Amino acid sequence: MDVRLINPFINATLCVLETMAFIQVTAGKPYVKKDNRAVGDVTGVLGLTGVANGTIAVTFEEKCILTIVSNMFGETMDVLNDEISDAVGELTNMISGQARRELEQLGKVFRAAIPSVVTGRNHSIRHYSDGPKIAIPFNTDGGDFTIEVCFER
Amino acid sequence: MDVRLINPFINATLCVLETMAFIQVTAGKPYVKKDNRAVGDVTGVLGLTGVANGTIAVTFEEKCILTIVSNMFGETMDVLNDEISDAVGELTNMISGQARRELEQLGKVFRAAIPSVVTGRNHSIRHYSDGPKIAIPFNTDGGDFTIEVCFER
Repeated sequence: MDVRLINPFINATLCVLETMAFIQVTAGKPYVKKDNRAVGDVTGVLGLTGVANGTIAVTFEEKCILTIVSNMFGETMDVLNDEISDAVGELTNMISGQARRELEQLGKVFRAAIPSVVTGRNHSIRHYSDGPKIAIPFNTDGGDFTIEVCFER
Repeated sequence: MDVRLINPFINATLCVLETMAFIQVTAGKPYVKKDNRAVGDVTGVLGLTGVANGTIAVTFEEKCILTIVSNMFGETMDVLNDEISDAVGELTNMISGQARRELEQLGKVFRAAIPSVVTGRNHSIRHYSDGPKIAIPFNTDGGDFTIEVCFER
């Protein structure tokens, strides 16, 4: 996969989380995902079409997303409810939107579908494509989350 | 939502399941989804873009998808593993493809992203859009599954 497709998602994630949730986020080293082990409790999934078809998934540990949404809302959130799901949908949209703007500057135009948010303890996610699945781990003071990006070959 | 957007997904689902898994499928009455209660154990999610942006989710109970994939493969499958996830990804692709062909004949052209498959007992799914979320329940001898279709307004 063209690494230039990945960096905009990292930049967008750092920008969106720091702007919306006032939280310090550190990006780890991207890696090619080999298995579909569970990486979290809430996942926002968003399909992309355009110069390539793909999907992004943003998967949070419960503690991490509760911290992020508590910061966004300015009040303590302590349970995974519909408000949390909608916040994950909105964050997924914003990350996608910001990344797509950067990709467009590189001449790569994508359209986004609408986000679906899955809630369920220790769920796993697998992207059905022969293209590489790149996972990017992120760390915050509140816990970890992962972004997966997959484009078809 | 334009009901003409929904019927092609029902027709495609009946056709794909009966053709691929030799299983009798009955479609129940579509309804507007009000909550995000868990409807299953394995879900294929696929984003759509085009005349409207949207998403479809195909959610199976464990027993139902094991029966379907056992029929597809001609061997007994008794555990939710990567083969089951890939079969759900493929079924989601085929249902989308068939539905999109019928929609195209109505002058409504959609592009599909790539499917992501979520596995996790009793997960719930919520589509982040202000458009209506239509759920279509399906029944088979092996158990139930649900297709959700959501397009933005």
